[in-house]
This record gives sequence, structure tokens and C-alpha cells, in this order.
Amino acid sequence: MSQASNEELRAVVWRVTARGPGLALIDQTALPHALRRLDVHTVDQLVDAIVRLVVRGAPALGAAGAYGVALALVQGEREGWGRARVDAEVARVRAARPTAVNLMTCVDRAAARLDEGLGAVLAEADAVVEEDLAANHAMGRHGADWLLERLGRDRPLRVLTHCNTGALATAGWGTALGVIRELHRRDRLQAVYADETRPLLQGARLTAWELARAGIPHYVQADAAAAGVILRGEVDAAVVGADRIAANGDTANKVGTVGIALACAHAGIPFVVAAPTTTVDLATASGADIPIELRAADEVLEWAGVRTAPADSRGHNPAFDVTPGALVTALVTERGVREVAKGELPL
Amino acid sequence: MSQASNEELRAVVWRVTARGPGLALIDQTALPHALRRLDVHTVDQLVDAIVRLVVRGAPALGAAGAYGVALALVQGEREGWGRARVDAEVARVRAARPTAVNLMTCVDRAAARLDEGLGAVLAEADAVVEEDLAANHAMGRHGADWLLERLGRDRPLRVLTHCNTGALATAGWGTALGVIRELHRRDRLQAVYADETRPLLQGARLTAWELARAGIPHYVQADAAAAGVILRGEVDAAVVGADRIAANGDTANKVGTVGIALACAHAGIPFVVAAPTTTVDLATASGADIPIELRAADEVLEWAGVRTAPADSRGHNPAFDVTPGALVTALVTERGVREVAKGELPL
Repeated sequence: MSQASNEELRAVVWRVTARGPGLALIDQTALPHALRRLDVHTVDQLVDAIVRLVVRGAPALGAAGAYGVALALVQGEREGWGRARVDAEVARVRAARPTAVNLMTCVDRAAARLDEGLGAVLAEADAVVEEDLAANHAMGRHGADWLLERLGRDRPLRVLTHCNTGALATAGWGTALGVIRELHRRDRLQAVYADETRPLLQGARLTAWELARAGIPHYVQADAAAAGVILRGEVDAAVVGADRIAANGDTANKVGTVGIALACAHAGIPFVVAAPTTTVDLATASGADIPIELRAADEVLEWAGVRTAPADSRGHNPAFDVTPGALVTALVTERGVREVAKGELPL
Repeated sequence: MSQASNEELRAVVWRVTARGPGLALIDQTALPHALRRLDVHTVDQLVDAIVRLVVRGAPALGAAGAYGVALALVQGEREGWGRARVDAEVARVRAARPTAVNLMTCVDRAAARLDEGLGAVLAEADAVVEEDLAANHAMGRHGADWLLERLGRDRPLRVLTHCNTGALATAGWGTALGVIRELHRRDRLQAVYADETRPLLQGARLTAWELARAGIPHYVQADAAAAGVILRGEVDAAVVGADRIAANGDTANKVGTVGIALACAHAGIPFVVAAPTTTVDLATASGADIPIELRAADEVLEWAGVRTAPADSRGHNPAFDVTPGALVTALVTERGVREVAKGELPL
């Protein structure tokens, strides 16, 4: 983990405590008010943490899923599971959330080493993390290069982003937020417009927290403000992450993303997706084939346990939407930049 | 007020209490949990109520502004103001919020009767209310006719709306919500998707409350869900209100509206604006000339008094955005329907 020493923030780590080896996750439901870790020693705890978004973000879910295979193995040894039970528990981790493909592929990678024992599974999970970290730094460089080439270097850029794609959402550094960090590192960033990202406020709580920690100037705004700020010319580009990219370039990401893409197309500014190639799912032909997770209605009907809508109102709470590939100006991966809207395929 | 007897909900009424004559406003900050009126006897109280959104919605602001002139007159008589002071207080009411043109025009209408005394000013304010109510019912009919003609009558419609444009936002019945009520009255409405409308949740708190009272099936959703639900074909049309319509058809409305318009254009479904002709401001050439109110950043950085963003994050909180006239499929006024996107002017 050559770059790990530069990373202060690691959402997903494997560590040994008094209760034995296990996962230690930054509890993202407690941010921005408290930075604390949740120690996870059972598959039940891990699935619950994934569902409650203690850990979230497609690449971070991949890391958590890979270590989750090790967790199942350790718990199985402790509780005397046979291999069939271990496989069944691994399958529960794999299915904990349906939209991001990284969770599934990284679980599969680690599970393929089960026959070799815990050391091999952990080595595979470590590799998932190392590769993601390296991919994020490469994406940051490619994305910043492309944006500065495309938009000129005469003044620092104003970039809009949605949800959280930073160190918390990945193995470290971030995808879209990695591009933003790289622009800041090069002193080519004026400010970030961070959508708050309802209903769970990953933008206001997590992205703003990462930006504040990094000393990056930013504004938090309602998601509904994004299209207007883009159309008024107050933003030079939007950079977002992805949860799954279909073979034709259609991109599933946090609900609200497609509205930003439409506004960018109307304003004639770049709409950039930054995601590792592991997010590209060639087995999914188009966005119509990506399952969209419908989450509990209460997330949009309540706030911190207090009902905001009338008691007899129903809620509609899709967690993601699909942006047609034709609206994706550039897809930034660790391998470089693809101009999807011009017909380049994601891989 | 021939239609008033059918209206159970009147956001703005003039009434005499033990403290004398004054305005009684439904306190929209207390909904959906409590339905109560705030009695307003001074210009200070009225300006505060407008700024805090106790009363909001362009036509309701017009009514409150017209009665506000009467209020200034009554307070002036009570406190011995000269005419210059009355004029200055009326100007404060007129300037309490900058974007909606109705507040200004209705204040001006009532103020033009000041020389004739309180009776004439109240008669003018009553006329503002009566005309708005009649306009809303006419809009409901025209809008429902146009939608059913355009979309066919084979199955009930699924309509998306944003913010609150109902009885609470007007003299009664509603503009966009009046069209929705009329579709429901004709049994041609399947369901309403009501955007929650951050930051102040007029959709989740007020529109859902009006829909629930009227027995209209509805879903509350995050604003960011609007574009996705439209692109997935789950909505037949969007119907929204307006705070100011420029001479070229550009339309200022609650922040988030232009994103809905872009999604409707992409999906090929109607984007309908319902607003009385008093909302059309021929003195404003285009959307670029409409002032956009920037509200306090705390509205987006906090939730019910609890900070959600980090302490050192800044907020960006525009209350409105501007939808280009080219994206307005139809403008419904009390006079009929204009197909603005096809080049018809709003008046």
C-alpha cells in the first residue's frame, strides 16, 4: 500500500481487536458530528451496516464486501460453519445492496480464494483496496488533465458534484472527489458546489466534511439548485461518480444525477463521470437493465425520526437514477478518459 | 365571492378581532402538524410573516400585500401616521420579497385607492381575492381540458408537481394544484408525484397536506427523484406554478423547476405552467431580468435548527430558478392555454 501513508482517511480497514479480527468501518451515519469507527465481527453486523449506510459508496462497498468474505470465514471458524454455510453467508453480503456492481464483483474476487484460506482471502481484499486507491489517484490525474485541457487554464474552475465520492466512498482519496482534490492540489480549483443529496444528505454531511477537512472552498446547496446554478453559468463542469456503468455507457448513480447531466447538456458544459473500470459492467447492456434500489419511504417522509409529511402520505424513494450515455461528456477511469457522448464505449 | 362558499381553505383573510381589524394568515410554517391562524395587526408583523413564509405563494402574497395596504392604513390611524409614513410602510410590504411580481402589482392596486379611504382599499383587496379565485377555477378547467386533449382520455393521468401551488399559495383552489384538483374532480387523475421541495419542504408539508385533505393519491419524493421518474416514463406530465413570467415566456418559479422542465423536454412529455395573467410581467423582457432571491444559507445548512453540514461549510440558497420559455410546453392562465415552446407569447 505505497500510497496509503498519504491517506489520513480510510473508511474500511481490517483490524484485530480484543474480540478478534474484524472490519472497522467509519460510521458514516454519525458524520459530520462525530468521527468514530464501528467494529464489525459478524456477517449480520456487516449486512446491517451496509443497509444502514454506515458504509456506502460503490468502491467502499467493494472493499467492505471483499473483507466481508474474510469475516464470514473467521466467523465460520469461530462458530463451526461448514463450507455451504460460509458460501450462504457470503451470498448475503453480496446481495446486501443491489445497484452498485462493485460489491458483487469484489465479493466474488475474494470468495474465489476461499479454498486457499484466510490469508489468501485477506490478500485479495487488500489487493482490492490497493488497486482502488491507485485507480483513484490515476483518475484524479486523468480527470484534472482533461478538464484543464478542455476548459483552459486561464482561471480556476468551479465544479459541481453530487452525493459523496470521496475517501469515505472508496478505499481512499475518492473518484469524482479525487478529481476535485487533484484540481485543488494543482491550485486550479475556485470552489465546489456540493449538492446536499437528499434524502440522506451524503453531500451536506460527508462531502462537505471531506472538503472542509481538505481546506477546499465549497458551498452546500439543495439538490434542486443544481440545474439553475448550471444554467446561470456559475459552474464550469459537473463531476460525479457512478454505481454501475452499462456496456453502452448508461450510468447509474445517486438519484439526482441525471438532472445534472441534462442541465450540463443544455448549458454546454462537461458532465464528467469518474469511476474505476470495476464499475463498468459489460454484462449489463444498457441502463434499462440496471436494477434501481427502492429504499424505505420513511427516509423521505421523516427527518431524524420526526415526520415531515402528513401521516397518510406515501413516499417514493428510488436511491439511484440512470443517465443515458449520450449525456456523459467524459468517463474518467484509471485507464484514461472516454468521451462517451461522442460514441466511445466505456471499455 | 360567489365561489368562496365552496372553499374550505383560505390562506389569507381579513377579520376583526378584539385587537381590531387585521389579517389572519394560516401559519404555513406549522403545517402539516397544526392548522392555525396568525393574527397580524402591524406592518412589522406582516413583513416578518412574509419573510418567514408564514404566507407564501405568488398569488397569496398578492392578496396579503393588498390587505397589507389596508393594514398600514389602520395602523397609521391608530398610531397617528401621516400619508408619507403610510406610503413608506406600504413600500416595505411591497419589497418584502423580490421575485414574485404579484406582491408588487397587488400592493400597487390597493395603494392606488388610498385616497378613497379604508373601504375602497378593502374593496380592492377583496377584488384581488375574488379575481384570483375565479382565475384559479378557470385555470383548472383550461389546464385539465388541454392535458386530456393532449394526452388522451384512455387512462387516468400521473402528474408531477413541485412546491405548493394550492389553496395555501393562492386565494383558494390553487393554480397548478387547481389543475390537479380539476383532473381529480373529473376522475381522470391516477396519482400525483409531489416533490418535497427543499429546503423548506413546501411539497412534503403543504402540497401533500392539501392532497391528503382532498383524498388525492400521491407520493412524496426527494426533488432529485423528479428527473429520473420522468425519464423512466412513470409520469405523464409535470404541472407547476410561477412566481414571475417574462414577456418572452421565461418563467421564474421555485428552485428545482427548470430541472423538471429539462427532464420533460428530454422525455417528450408536457411541461405545463399554470399561473394567472397577473404573474406575467411585460416590463420584464426575459428571465435574465428577473431578480432571484438568495435566502439565508442556514435553511440549507440546518434542519429544524440542527446543523447538518460541517460548521465551516458555506451555503448557497437561491429560492427560485428560471425556466426558458422554449421549455414551457403550455402556459395555462385564466384566459386559456398558450403553447409557449411553439412561440406563442404569454399574453
